[in-house]
Amino acid sequence: MRPKGRSGEETMKKFINSVDGVLAESLDGLAAAHADLVALGPERKFVRRRELNPKKVALVSGGGSGHEPLHAGFVGYGMLDAACPGQVFTSPTPDQIVEAAQAVSGEAGVLFIVKNYAGDRMNFEMAAEIAEGLTATIVTDDDVAVENSTHSIGRRGVAGTLIVEKIVGAAAEKGADLKGCVALGERVNVRTRSMGVALTSCTVPAAGTPTFSLGQDEMEMGVGIHGEPGRRRVKLERADAIADEMTTAIAQDLDARDGAEALLLVNGFGGTPTIELYLMYNAARRMLEKRGLRIARSLVGSFVTSLDMAGCSLTVSLLDAETTALWDHPVRTAALKW
Amino acid sequence: MRPKGRSGEETMKKFINSVDGVLAESLDGLAAAHADLVALGPERKFVRRRELNPKKVALVSGGGSGHEPLHAGFVGYGMLDAACPGQVFTSPTPDQIVEAAQAVSGEAGVLFIVKNYAGDRMNFEMAAEIAEGLTATIVTDDDVAVENSTHSIGRRGVAGTLIVEKIVGAAAEKGADLKGCVALGERVNVRTRSMGVALTSCTVPAAGTPTFSLGQDEMEMGVGIHGEPGRRRVKLERADAIADEMTTAIAQDLDARDGAEALLLVNGFGGTPTIELYLMYNAARRMLEKRGLRIARSLVGSFVTSLDMAGCSLTVSLLDAETTALWDHPVRTAALKW
Repeated sequence: MRPKGRSGEETMKKFINSVDGVLAESLDGLAAAHADLVALGPERKFVRRRELNPKKVALVSGGGSGHEPLHAGFVGYGMLDAACPGQVFTSPTPDQIVEAAQAVSGEAGVLFIVKNYAGDRMNFEMAAEIAEGLTATIVTDDDVAVENSTHSIGRRGVAGTLIVEKIVGAAAEKGADLKGCVALGERVNVRTRSMGVALTSCTVPAAGTPTFSLGQDEMEMGVGIHGEPGRRRVKLERADAIADEMTTAIAQDLDARDGAEALLLVNGFGGTPTIELYLMYNAARRMLEKRGLRIARSLVGSFVTSLDMAGCSLTVSLLDAETTALWDHPVRTAALKW
Repeated sequence: MRPKGRSGEETMKKFINSVDGVLAESLDGLAAAHADLVALGPERKFVRRRELNPKKVALVSGGGSGHEPLHAGFVGYGMLDAACPGQVFTSPTPDQIVEAAQAVSGEAGVLFIVKNYAGDRMNFEMAAEIAEGLTATIVTDDDVAVENSTHSIGRRGVAGTLIVEKIVGAAAEKGADLKGCVALGERVNVRTRSMGVALTSCTVPAAGTPTFSLGQDEMEMGVGIHGEPGRRRVKLERADAIADEMTTAIAQDLDARDGAEALLLVNGFGGTPTIELYLMYNAARRMLEKRGLRIARSLVGSFVTSLDMAGCSLTVSLLDAETTALWDHPVRTAALKW
């Protein structure tokens, strides 16, 4: 699309037709490309599994768009039953969530998985009050960068949410009840820590200009997935120095026993290519192993993005025999398959 | 890494430690993250499957790095047996290819899958002469944008290479012989057409500055995956106008019968996020269906990249019953799994 910024400013270079149509057109593309897995709800209020299992706990997540493939890309066997996409960086409305819950709920109840942002929490809470039937909620808050943030009281929910959705999704598939799913999700969430860094800002289509401005030799350490401020704005560093700061923050917060098994997720923010993500994985893995962790499972790719931001996050999640088996359980979604 | 460009120029913002170490560190990360699937050859000359099947035709590909996950991310069951990564945008050396072929070859021979660039073709040809035993070669040249290019006589091999590797990989797994694999690969290649567009340049780490310079309201239509010039430098357009130009060029060249079944691959170049790729998929699919094609299979993601370039390519590959079944055949690699 032609740039909209004022002359001399950085401007928007995106594949879009209109600012208002981005979400709808992208959802139509997702639904058409993965018609074997998912279907769109009326007025695109939610993305749901094509084939539902009314006997299992139904998992419903959602949040602002711009983090693709989160959450719609995780709808399918072994993970979510439905996802509610809000507009870019905007919470889904309570009626979206209610309709999604009603569309996928069976006899075992509905579990909401909600990232810790004020708008998301409020709207999922309102939906839980309106929705008839049994619901429960897990709130994810894995980001160690800051204690409170622009849109959250308490820590932000970021890439660790994927791990909660995968592990609880597998448990639900295997017949866990609602109470068991809540306990499991909370257990995974408290064992999961993330931190991100931005090399560039993202650009929200409706704004047309970058959310924040970074000097050509600067990075934002501890950035949020909406471009919220992190811990500090610093000079660009080598990958090892970046990974060291992030793994140190995560490890200090996790306080894992020596030899503990963990999952390491290196997550790109949308504008960072695979070659760099694997390089960061290599750095982070070495550092975590030096700290006594054993990296038993790995995931590298762009899963919880911030539009076109260049940057990445590291997530470490402590595993036990049960959660390892649930992580390994088959999954069939647009973005995760094994 | 701290930028290296001269003051006032655009500079490099990447996760790297040193220009010379990028490839090695990224390969170490890939091998560690996917140790269940792949192993590194000595001196990182190649990436090979962890478990080899000496009875099947061995598929070996390779080329310059910077296109990750191509090719190393496609090593595994149902696809490649080995991949030889050259330095960024630099062909692998003949000795890399020979060692890879020797490491994975069994009784059924080795098939080289080579993108049509002069350096790659020359080095794979030299390797075929040096390597003892039965070898054959498929050259891919799916890019309709230009007839000759900076690094190629004839059309460039781009994202369609993934489709050749997947379909021939499945056939080899099912017991096809070397002659059958060559015939199949050539059949898929001639039915596969691609075209790309760049919204930004990529930046080669060793150069430190963008490969080419694009105005803030410009795009390069028909760009190559190394940033080679395309058909024309034009003003940025809406996604539909971009998709229309690309699908028109592809469809005119394919000359498919009405109602023909096709695979549509929307491929990101590394700096373009998923939300935009699905929007482009939505546009391209509609246009191709209007032209009488039936989109029977789809793939959306960043698979054949150009470092951190923002942009994408569209690939259309005509399918028949046999190639559809081979596309659907299970695959277990770092980047493609089903």
